[in-house]
Order: sequence, then C-alpha cells, then structure tokens
Amino acid sequence: MRKIAIPIKSLKRLAHYHFYLKQLQKKNRDFVSNERLAADLNLSISDVREDLENYNESLSVSDIHSVENLISTVEKFLEQENKNSAVIVGIGNLGKALLDYQGFKACGLEILAVFDNNPQVIGNKLANHEIFSVDRLEELTKRLSINIGIITTPPEPAQRIANALISSGVKGIWNFSLAILKVPENITLKNTSLYSDYVSLSQKIQEL
Amino acid sequence: MRKIAIPIKSLKRLAHYHFYLKQLQKKNRDFVSNERLAADLNLSISDVREDLENYNESLSVSDIHSVENLISTVEKFLEQENKNSAVIVGIGNLGKALLDYQGFKACGLEILAVFDNNPQVIGNKLANHEIFSVDRLEELTKRLSINIGIITTPPEPAQRIANALISSGVKGIWNFSLAILKVPENITLKNTSLYSDYVSLSQKIQEL
Repeated sequence: MRKIAIPIKSLKRLAHYHFYLKQLQKKNRDFVSNERLAADLNLSISDVREDLENYNESLSVSDIHSVENLISTVEKFLEQENKNSAVIVGIGNLGKALLDYQGFKACGLEILAVFDNNPQVIGNKLANHEIFSVDRLEELTKRLSINIGIITTPPEPAQRIANALISSGVKGIWNFSLAILKVPENITLKNTSLYSDYVSLSQKIQEL
Repeated sequence: MRKIAIPIKSLKRLAHYHFYLKQLQKKNRDFVSNERLAADLNLSISDVREDLENYNESLSVSDIHSVENLISTVEKFLEQENKNSAVIVGIGNLGKALLDYQGFKACGLEILAVFDNNPQVIGNKLANHEIFSVDRLEELTKRLSINIGIITTPPEPAQRIANALISSGVKGIWNFSLAILKVPENITLKNTSLYSDYVSLSQKIQEL
C-alpha cells in the first residue's frame, strides 16, 4: 500500500506530534522550531529533523515550520498510513477502553464489530456498535473482510478465538489476554501485556 | 528488597507460567517436563531451564516437575517480587480495566485509591474503592505512602497530575496517556501507548 517505507519509530511518534501540535494551535502559536519540538517532545534535534523529513521531504528545507502545515501533514499520515478494520472480542472494561481510545480515532483503525459471550450484553449497543454473540464471530469477520482481530477476553478462550479469527481471514491478532497464542507464520501476532509492563516498571523502581 | 537479581525476561514470564500451570492443574496433570513447558509456552528448552532455575535453584536438578510444586514457587514470586502500592488517576474505561485486571491481582500490585475530576462519579464506589476528587490526590497519595501513580486521563492534564504525584512521593509513574511527560531523573517513567502498539502491528501486517 505504502510507496516509501517510513521507519517505525517515526510512525510511532506521529500521535505525539499530533497531540503536541494541537496544543500549540490552541495557544494560537503559528510557528514552531525543530529545537522547540525536540525540547518539548524529549527528542534530539536530529530525531525531529528525520521524523519531519520522513513525513514530508519538503519539511527538511527549514528549521522553522508553520504549525498548521505540520498538523495537516501529520493528520494525512495518521489517516492514511495505518488503515485497518478490526473486530474486538470481549467487551469488558478493556474492550470498552479500546473502543473509545482517543489515539485510534484519528489514525485509521476502524472497529467494525464487537463480540461477547455474555447473553446479558448481546444485542445491546455500545458507542454505536451492536454487541454480537461470539457464535457469529467467524461469519461476520469473513463477511466484513476484517484484517485485525483484537482479543480482550480472559486467557482461557483466547486460543479458540484466535483460531476462529484466523480461519475467517484476519492478517493480524492483537492479544491482550495472558494466554500464549500460537499462530501460523503468515499471521502477525502482537501481544500487549499489562502484566509485563508492570513488572518492568516495578523492577526499575527497585533498582533505584 | 530482593537479594538475588532475577533477569527481567524471567520475571515477565512468571504470569505466563502461572496461567499455564493452573490449566494443567485443572486437567489433573501432576507432572510437567521442561520440554512440554517449552513447546506450550513458545520458548526454547534452555529458556525454560533458566527461568525455573531463576525462580528456584532446586528446580534445575530435574527436567520433570511436580505441577503443584511449580505453582507454589511461581505464586511465591508473583506475590513477593513486585510489591507496590498504586493510585489510579482517571476512572474511564481504561482506569476501570486496570482496576480489575486479572494479571495484577496475583502479583503484588495493590491499588489503594482512585481519583477522577468528574463530580458525577466522585464519591461512588468502584470494586470496593471510593472514587476521590482529584483535588485530594496529593494529600491522599502522601498519607498512603504510595509508590506508583497510574495516569489514565486524557493527555491535557497528564503533566500536571504527574507533577502532583511526584511531589507526593511516588517513585514511578505509569503513563497511559498520549502526553509526553517530563519527570526528574530519580523517578521511573513507564509509558504504555496503545497507539504505538497498534502502529507496530499495522506496519508488520503491511510488510507481509
């Protein structure tokens, strides 16, 4: 889809630039320098230069930028670069948090359906999404040509759900459960483990 | 606190062993080999040997283990290794998800208070926690001798909240907002960015 490969570290910083630039706009600031961006985003000036050049080559010409111009460059990227359709399986608090996560709204991740196995919530609406029974996961994932399946269930059913998603044609699985999933080589698996993040924070605190 | 340093990769895997061993126990399996652990947890046999030796030296004597014995070793670690007290600031869906996240319950992270700025929820109870006004953040964080502040607010107030937490004596900040926080050198900052995780998944899918 993309013509020129942008390093992933630059892509990961897109949302930070976006948030920061929007704040400058609110303060009616018209221009911003590479130096200021670096200082306020905790980056080196050469990181900032590289990021901006990656987003749009013409931004390397000057060290001072129009805030409006930068915002539109960044927004173009946020929308175009990561276009994916997803389903969420498991509408507990984490599923709900993902459904209304600010960072996704601007950046191309469209959540097209949500699933749960709790009869008390199936059929309800959540942020304009009907909650479907997990029995319909394969059928709807196939019909909607979904490419990412997001699993926010407890660990026990996670492998079974991953298998259903894969046989329905998703290309990627985003696993928030503690289960260790097995997926074929042609499927991308991303694990986000709150537990692992906590352990690394906790260990760094103990080292202080 | 800890006498012998355990590599962080072994610590991060504790919750995976725990979940897996509990499943074996449910299936009435009394013994498990290093080979089976490696296959089912997607690890190499030498990783498994190293992990188990890290958790308890005596586990390196044999390649076959009592499931019950392994569970009690792992649980001892989960409870002792990462004892921290925390507050959560921002009780949206993500804050609620953290408050009832399965992975924390077993492993020493105790959430002692939760805060929000929404008058409609202040004073309510959530999973046995009263929701306090964010105006009382500094006072209560100090009084409870909290060492981790978890920020799940929108990005705009995040730096202000981080400053309040730091001046109340926390040693670590766990930031889920999109804000780029600045903290003094003696404070540990852990950023968990759902946006960044999504971008890395999305990019890998596009490379396929």
